[in-house]
Parts: sequence; C-alpha cells; structure tokens
Amino acid sequence: MSQVKILLDESEIPAQWYNVVADMPNPPAPPLGPDGEPINPEALSAIFPPAVIEQEISRERWITVPEPVLQVYRLWRPTPLYRALRLEQALGTPARIYYKYEGVSPAGSHKPNTSVAQAYFNSIAGIRRLATETGAGQWGSALAMAGRMFGIDVRVYMVRVSYEQKPFRRSMMESWGAEVIASPSTITNSGRSVLAGAPDSPGSLGIAISEAVEEAASRKDTNYALGSVLNHVLLHQTVIGLEARKQFEKLNDYPDVVIACCGGGSNFGGTAFPFFADKACGRRVRLLAVEPESCPTLTRGHYAYDSGDTAGLTPLMLMYTLGRNFVPPRIHAGGLRYHGDSPLVSQLHHEGLVDALAVPQRATFEAGLMFARAEGIIPAPETNHAIRAAIDEAEACTRTGERKTIFFTLSGHGHFDMAAYDRYLSGELEDSPYPEAAIKAALAELPNIARPPS
Amino acid sequence: MSQVKILLDESEIPAQWYNVVADMPNPPAPPLGPDGEPINPEALSAIFPPAVIEQEISRERWITVPEPVLQVYRLWRPTPLYRALRLEQALGTPARIYYKYEGVSPAGSHKPNTSVAQAYFNSIAGIRRLATETGAGQWGSALAMAGRMFGIDVRVYMVRVSYEQKPFRRSMMESWGAEVIASPSTITNSGRSVLAGAPDSPGSLGIAISEAVEEAASRKDTNYALGSVLNHVLLHQTVIGLEARKQFEKLNDYPDVVIACCGGGSNFGGTAFPFFADKACGRRVRLLAVEPESCPTLTRGHYAYDSGDTAGLTPLMLMYTLGRNFVPPRIHAGGLRYHGDSPLVSQLHHEGLVDALAVPQRATFEAGLMFARAEGIIPAPETNHAIRAAIDEAEACTRTGERKTIFFTLSGHGHFDMAAYDRYLSGELEDSPYPEAAIKAALAELPNIARPPS
Repeated sequence: MSQVKILLDESEIPAQWYNVVADMPNPPAPPLGPDGEPINPEALSAIFPPAVIEQEISRERWITVPEPVLQVYRLWRPTPLYRALRLEQALGTPARIYYKYEGVSPAGSHKPNTSVAQAYFNSIAGIRRLATETGAGQWGSALAMAGRMFGIDVRVYMVRVSYEQKPFRRSMMESWGAEVIASPSTITNSGRSVLAGAPDSPGSLGIAISEAVEEAASRKDTNYALGSVLNHVLLHQTVIGLEARKQFEKLNDYPDVVIACCGGGSNFGGTAFPFFADKACGRRVRLLAVEPESCPTLTRGHYAYDSGDTAGLTPLMLMYTLGRNFVPPRIHAGGLRYHGDSPLVSQLHHEGLVDALAVPQRATFEAGLMFARAEGIIPAPETNHAIRAAIDEAEACTRTGERKTIFFTLSGHGHFDMAAYDRYLSGELEDSPYPEAAIKAALAELPNIARPPS
Repeated sequence: MSQVKILLDESEIPAQWYNVVADMPNPPAPPLGPDGEPINPEALSAIFPPAVIEQEISRERWITVPEPVLQVYRLWRPTPLYRALRLEQALGTPARIYYKYEGVSPAGSHKPNTSVAQAYFNSIAGIRRLATETGAGQWGSALAMAGRMFGIDVRVYMVRVSYEQKPFRRSMMESWGAEVIASPSTITNSGRSVLAGAPDSPGSLGIAISEAVEEAASRKDTNYALGSVLNHVLLHQTVIGLEARKQFEKLNDYPDVVIACCGGGSNFGGTAFPFFADKACGRRVRLLAVEPESCPTLTRGHYAYDSGDTAGLTPLMLMYTLGRNFVPPRIHAGGLRYHGDSPLVSQLHHEGLVDALAVPQRATFEAGLMFARAEGIIPAPETNHAIRAAIDEAEACTRTGERKTIFFTLSGHGHFDMAAYDRYLSGELEDSPYPEAAIKAALAELPNIARPPS
C-alpha cells in the first residue's frame, strides 16, 4: 500500500505568500468609488491597516510572512496532504485522489491562515478592536481566535440563518472572547434598513459585511477584517497551495485537476493560485471552482462592477455577481451564500483560465457522507461541494480508464454542521430550485457601469 | 523562541503496544466469576474475539500492532506534541508545559487508538456486528468510524444525559452508519430494570455497559467492545505515551510529572504506562490521574472487587470503585462518569506508584478556557481536568521558582461540548457537591468478597 499521508517539516511552512497578480495575463481591474472613478487606496485606511492596503494593491510576486504570524501558523501548519486510498477503493476508480486537510486548525478550517495575518497587521498598527461578518461561522471563529492571540477585541455580525442553525459556532467565538450579533441587527443603519423591508430576513454575507463595514467606518477605534473576496485575503491563503505543491513534489506526482469550493474565493484562490503559477508557465493543469446551484455566482452571474456588500458601502469591484441585493436560499453551506466573488478569481474565470461548476445541495451531502465513511473525516457542507466534483472526476476516470491525479482542499470539518447531516440522513434535506426570479431581479439593479472590454 | 510543535515521522508510529503488566511489581489480581473463583478466559469468548482475550491476559511486554491497524493509525498518527509557550507566558511560570494532542483523530479524541484495533481483531474473527456503550459520545464515535472501516455494524447505547446534552455526537455516529440508542433503554432487561426503579434516570456508563454486554451475550452474531477499563484497551492506548516519550527524546527533555484525566483509565493508562516503564527502572517521574470531585473513584472509592457494570453482568474486578449502583451527578465530562476504574491503574495507585487528584467542575472549565484563549484549541470537558492540574503545577512553580517539565495529554477537542462552555460563560454552571450519601449507599452494596492482601 502506498503512502497515505504526506507531511512537511515545520521549516517547510512557506516563508512568503504568493501574489497571483504578478503572473496574471492582465492587470486586475481597479476598484471604483461611487463616482465610477478608480479609488485612491488611502481611502481604505479608515478600515484597514497600512500593511493590508499595501498587500491589496501589490504586484510583487512574493510577500514575506512575518515571524509572529509564522509562530502561530506552527500551531497547525504545515497541514497534511492525504491520498484518499480508501475512497478510491470504494469508488473502484483508477484515478488517484489527494486532499489537503485544513480542518486541523483550532478553528476547524482554512480561515486562520488569513485571520492570524490580519490580526497581526492590525496589532502592529495599534488597532485593538475589529468588526467582521461571518456566514457559517468559520471566519468569525478564526478571527475570534486570532484576535485573542494578538490582544484585539472582536465583534462578529453572524448571518442570522447560521446563527440559528449553528448556535455552537457562536459559543466557540464567545469562548475565545468575541462578541457575536445576529445579522441583520438593529444596531446599524444597514441592518435596520434590511429589517424594514424584510423583518424575517435570513441574512446574507452581503448584509453582514455592510453592518461590519458601517461599524468600522464610523468608529475610530475599530478596523474591519474580511474573511474572503479581497486580494490580500487570497494572498494569505496561498500557504495552502504552496504547501500542496511541495507535497506533490515529494510524491513525484502533479494534479491534472485542482478543485476547491468557492464562495468569496479565498479557499479556491489559496488552493489554486500557486498551481496557476505553473499554468502561467505552460504546465497543463485544470483549476476548478465549485459553487452551490442555488448561489451560482461564477456559472450564472454577470461579470460586472458591483459592491461587495448589500448596502453598497464597499468600493465597486469588477467580479462575477448575482446582484448585491440577492439573498441566497437557506442552504447549509453558509460560507458559500455570497452574491459576488473574488475579483481575482472572477477575472481568471472570465479569461478562461479557471473553470467553474455548480452542484445541487443533496448531491454534495451524498458525496460528503461517502467521503466520511471511507476516510473518517466528516467535512463541512462547503467542502462537500469540492468532494462532489472530485468524486465526479474520479467516476469519469472509471468509465474512461484514465488515471488522472485529482486534488482538492478539504477546507474544514463539519463538527458544527451535524444538524445538516441529520436532515440529510432523515431524508428531510431538499435541493433549493435555482432561484431564477430573485437573481434576475437583483441583476437588474446592478450599478450602471459599463463592463470594461475583456 | 523555542520550537512549539514536535512532530514524528510516520515511520515512528509505534509498531508495538506496551504491556505494563510486564513491569508491574505484582501480577494483576485475577477477575472473578459470580462464585468468587477466578474466571476462565474462555468464558469471555461469547463477547470478545480471540486476539483481544489473549491481550487481556498477556504478560508479554510488547505486542505487535497489525499492519491494517497501522494503516488506519496513519490517517492521524503520529499526533503532535506541543510546547504550550503561550500558556506559559499567560501564567508567567518558569515551568515548561507540554501537551500531546489526540483530538486530531477524525472522531476527535484518543478513542480510535483502540476502536480501530478492536474493530480489526473482531473483523478477522469473522464478526460483523458490535454492541457498545458511550458516555460523552467520544467512544461511540470512535467505534462507529472504526466499524465502518472494517465492515462492521455498530449499535451504541449512549448514556441518556449525554444523548440529550450532545445530540450532534449522535448525528456524528449516525453519519458513520451506527445506530444510537439512549440508555437506559426499554430494549434490554438491564435497561428496563433501571427504568422500573428510576424512570428519569440520567443513565451512567455502568448502566450502558450492562445493556451492551447483555445484547452481545444474547446474540450469536454480535460481540461487545469496551472503550476503557480493560487491560487490552489500555494496551492499545499506549501509542500515546510511546510517541510522547520519543518526542521528549527529540527535545532532550523529560517530564517531572505526567498528567491525564481518568474515568475508566484508558487515556491515563495510555499516556502514563510508557513512562511507568522508566519509573520501574528507577527514573523519577510522577504519574498523576485527575478525576471529577463528583465522581472521585481513585481518591474516595474503595479498593475492592466489584463488577464493571450496573447489572453485574461482567466479571468482578479488583479496582477502586464507588459501587456499581452509584449514578454520578450530571456533570459535563460524561466520559468521567464511571463508578469504577481500570484494574491496572487501580493496582498501581493502590501500590503508591500512581497519584490521583479530584477537581471541581467549574475550576476545570476555568482552566480549559484559559488554555483555549492562549493555545487556540478548545478542549473537551474531560481534558479540562488534566489542564486544571497542569496549570496548578505550573502555578506552584511560579511560587517556588522551580523549572519543572509538565506534560499532559489533551485527549480530545470540545467541539461537541459548546453547550457546557455556554453555561460556564453565562455563569450557570455549578459545582456538584460531593455526593457523599449516594456513594456511601452504593459502597454498602459492594459484593462481599474479601479484599486480597496488598
């Protein structure tokens, strides 16, 4: 039997993050202000510390990971790369399936890769308070933990449907000392305005971002931290793909396809960008982002300027979007309930360099359970999207006889999502139909800014 | 800054389990049948496979870990040993604190170290069905996962108070395909008999063991698997201490005190026995078992023959016991709610070679939260008992200036115990008073078998 787990030495944690901007065929489209003109990065200084703003606009290929960030990374990094031999056997596939397990972090997902960095950069800027949003709770947990480690108080606006579905994610954040508020809330203008129109609103990442940004912009002592979408967040997450590349080197193997689930894009970008660097040098590798059928941003959205939040407080970004007013159905993959997507991932998808696939909810849980029963680990509902695609790829190999190397990131465990597994096992979990009317309406409200030529 | 995490290579997973019996100053006292005579090991063949019975009575120092067991171990082993530098800093102690993290297993605790072995030995004996009990759900989860990997169906009797406090542990077991039943149940004689006297019984490990043993003894197709107490279980768990010893060698350090929480004794024995081997050779090392003040088996129990379950279906074992009819208060450390203790741990404690300490519930959560905020990982309530003792040792060093090396096993994470943290954070969690009257009554009912001379 071949090796099951490929570990790296602590000294092999990447000492630099990889900035994909350096290798993109075209420069990133600039964010725009409400006047339709490119914004001055300094405008971001009300909510972000200087180092983060620099990283957001940097074109340097490599950016050094500071030693205090590495010290915290060492609590769980390098993360293992596994060969899913038992899953391969269960599927009877000739393909080789590998997964990188980011659920070994104390918060249970890949999110601390950036929360630790953001907390550190805020702390050296003298910031002692952060506001943020969270969907499924993975990001809020990660920032709560990181904030505590760098002496920063954290307030988390948690999307209401997740707040109700996952009370123990809230307890986890509170255990690390954070304050958690269900969003939409009555303590911000953005929240009150949503509740005025929809008192039963389940919330969305877009709404929660509005609330956190509003708070950070209006309080001098408070900065804002975002768990996905922005360039610096994806930059920090590249430790995933950089480690994975080293691990494949040790195996003397290389993926034919790199798969990750994609909501705001931080897990996908962090996984795929280091492989994009090879692709940019001519290596053949398929990069596949997987999203929910009921929130199909990359596969059904418009490539257009839109704001990152519902209230329109953020700059306008060129990205795939379903319209900032779209409130996704209450699927269990709360981390994928986002109307937009990372501008970097969007641009690469628009240019044909990144593929995308949308999958229905039940099929993702079927895949997740098959994985759990073969490999042991119970994955987060978000991750189940990637597993669905990986299993589909492997089953295609069974039919064709191809011996592809399939790689995906197991972005988090599902310990706080057992209610969703319960519903699946009892047959109660349904697929949401594609919310065509709601998306059409939200797209019709997109800001009237011409899409730049591609 | 010194090294934070000490990893071993996959080839350093122990290839043999360590049997402490080989190094004990006196042979273990034999289990007795209902007639007061030593039982014939073959009597156990109705519920255990041959390899397990052999291990239960073996006096060989080293017992080989079969390759199929090692293959599953490799999914998460070797587990990391951490230096708790951030906790040391928070405490301002001159002591060095180390912990071995067993929560990295897919089931979230040390329990798969034995569940995988037991499932394997049953599978090669042709067994396709197992019955077991679980307290907090850690053991049931571990056996559900292991059973699935070796093609064995699992039924779990889950102590009712945990069944109610931790519904998602049940979902986890069901996700791996196990069947979960709240204990006491109406489907066994043992369960019905408890319910007749106490319809609202919260259950206990002793009752759940009765139900599972009764089922296994009465069904030809079904064996029984126990998550703690017995010699073979502690044997399998010695991978913890064996790895830790190698990790200390790499550090060129050695613990002054080895700490683990202790319910049935598998985590404590697995952690401490490999260090006992050194102690038996004259090395100075303190071995400290930590238990709840409301279920103080080692510190307040009698050293006497008693049965391992409430109904009296198991052989009588010489151990510290609070009386098989004692139903411990509803503390959150469900894995420590057991009237008895491992006969091996009990004998070593009786002979003065193992120390024991009982701690109150609130103090354990205080310690667990301090740990989580410093080190990131949120521990299981059982583990918080060990952390309390480790912090107390470190604080003593702060007073005396001693630079002790303190080592404990972080036996599991607390992801399914957030309701307990919630109660602690909101000030609702209370200490149960020492249940003196209940223990006195249960001790009065001990079988009338003379304690052998020690």
